[in-house]
Amino acid sequence: MPELRKDPIIGRWVIISTDRGKRPCDFIVPAPPPKGGLCPFCGGNETMTPPEIISYSNGSHDADNNSQWSIRVVPNKYPALKVEGNLDRAGEGVYDKMNGIGAHEVIIESPKHDDTLAMLPTKHFEEVLWAYRDRIIDLKQDLRLRYLVIFKNHGEAAGASLEHTHSQLIALPIVPKRVAEELDGSLEYYNYKERCIFCDIIRQEIAQGSRIVTENQDYVAITPYAPKSPFEIWILPKFHESNFENSQKHHYENLAIIFSNVLKRMNKVLSSPPYNFILHTAPIKNGTSALPHYHWHFEIMPKLTKMAGFEWGSGFYINPTPPEESAKFLREAKL
Amino acid sequence: MPELRKDPIIGRWVIISTDRGKRPCDFIVPAPPPKGGLCPFCGGNETMTPPEIISYSNGSHDADNNSQWSIRVVPNKYPALKVEGNLDRAGEGVYDKMNGIGAHEVIIESPKHDDTLAMLPTKHFEEVLWAYRDRIIDLKQDLRLRYLVIFKNHGEAAGASLEHTHSQLIALPIVPKRVAEELDGSLEYYNYKERCIFCDIIRQEIAQGSRIVTENQDYVAITPYAPKSPFEIWILPKFHESNFENSQKHHYENLAIIFSNVLKRMNKVLSSPPYNFILHTAPIKNGTSALPHYHWHFEIMPKLTKMAGFEWGSGFYINPTPPEESAKFLREAKL
Repeated sequence: MPELRKDPIIGRWVIISTDRGKRPCDFIVPAPPPKGGLCPFCGGNETMTPPEIISYSNGSHDADNNSQWSIRVVPNKYPALKVEGNLDRAGEGVYDKMNGIGAHEVIIESPKHDDTLAMLPTKHFEEVLWAYRDRIIDLKQDLRLRYLVIFKNHGEAAGASLEHTHSQLIALPIVPKRVAEELDGSLEYYNYKERCIFCDIIRQEIAQGSRIVTENQDYVAITPYAPKSPFEIWILPKFHESNFENSQKHHYENLAIIFSNVLKRMNKVLSSPPYNFILHTAPIKNGTSALPHYHWHFEIMPKLTKMAGFEWGSGFYINPTPPEESAKFLREAKL
Repeated sequence: MPELRKDPIIGRWVIISTDRGKRPCDFIVPAPPPKGGLCPFCGGNETMTPPEIISYSNGSHDADNNSQWSIRVVPNKYPALKVEGNLDRAGEGVYDKMNGIGAHEVIIESPKHDDTLAMLPTKHFEEVLWAYRDRIIDLKQDLRLRYLVIFKNHGEAAGASLEHTHSQLIALPIVPKRVAEELDGSLEYYNYKERCIFCDIIRQEIAQGSRIVTENQDYVAITPYAPKSPFEIWILPKFHESNFENSQKHHYENLAIIFSNVLKRMNKVLSSPPYNFILHTAPIKNGTSALPHYHWHFEIMPKLTKMAGFEWGSGFYINPTPPEESAKFLREAKL
């Protein structure tokens, strides 16, 4: 059973894989990627994954493990957390821990090995977003869970271990530190101003224009004012909404359009870099009522620099590219 | 002038290089490292760096730019922050910014190109630590400054742009987020328990033993209970002290001995990995009075994994190696 452990000084929880710890030699000589071999995510190889949770086929839902799918969600074969068991919170002197209860799923975005998310037709891209929504709505019913992290690692340098296009979902019994900070910070602003800080940011960005990448009726893509890394991009709904899963059908259509457009711009300007994106949405609560102070969004980070360790240790970031310049490059990209 | 900008949601300050922003092509085709060319940090090439701030020569201080030095501190040729100017705090709608005032120095740890910090004689290693102390004491006099980050990037994957062994110092007009969190967390514990949380951790670790890497009379090296990354190591003084620069002569001797020993163990177990280390010490205040709740320490992180973007975005870490196992490997390494 993996273990969740809390740093007693700063209160951050981490997952420790206690079952089969990686030994030094696993880091020194990393296992070669399974090139040429069979890809478990390809259409036709469905038996190589654990039984599927859900699949979409031409827009209709279907869970019979056949190959006529466009999106397929399966449990991660090597999950960071396990579904069965109790949390069993416990102390250990000055330390706190609990069992690593949760879920770890893979959203396979296409049956074709050479597809990338950016090149999918927007209708297909929209299905990926619907898959996120469907999994959130299903997992919200598990009362042990507090937060769902949906993210994508694209490219080896961004942490992808399989090249076939996919995103991941990790369901946690805690709220990750960064999200908790956003919730606290935005609540503080709301208590002071009685406005959503994200809504204020969106209004100011649209009025100012210099950090806009692109926009449509429902969404805006910006480079944030104080980005951690060069060419970081956020996609936010223009309407106030704290929960990603509460959006309407036509919203997902427009989200797929802008998201696809932003990835194409990033690929054009930065020659298809490795990247990560993460959905920031409100924590799981009973019911669907929205938070007045929080505003869901996607954060996209091309992996261009290498200073990870120092930044991790200090919380201090040096960004060599002003967001106004990166927005300009992205905005002016000829697609 | 570089700019310090504050994320309005979570309150984190970042440095934005506004002078000469890196353009997309700078990331796509990184400049090749100056191999074979002259190394500005080598003995004999002193004129290739900005004029030196301080140098040590056989333990005596000397600032005459000659080659008989063992340690040499110079301004960074491409500083992230500038010494001259005023902070000029200003708002920009919902955002906050100030001028990028500060200092960025390089501590060249040896005149020899092929030396590494781990292989230096402990007497020489001690001089590196003295250089940190001397620079802290000098820079504390600048009342615009709030924090000094001392760190080392070793190896290209850990962010080193020059291979000649060196560490860096960045003096900031703000306290970096991660350090502020440590200060807040340890103060909260102190207010509740009237004890330093680091002192409690050290007592528990020594009693328990499973996460000890090595120790001597004054210092202990542990793998932390909830590490962000595999084989993370902390070196802490066994005596309570919040300010690195307040230690005594014999303390630095013993610190050099344990630090060198820890790096040798890490190199043995992980085949000389790229790594970062960061000194965590109390913020700059007038006077030298120590904080009762804070405890300085070094955090050492070998760069073994690649999941940076996702962790940056979520604040959520999955560690594939339990610290008890990494401590055992490091403790049992035959040097």
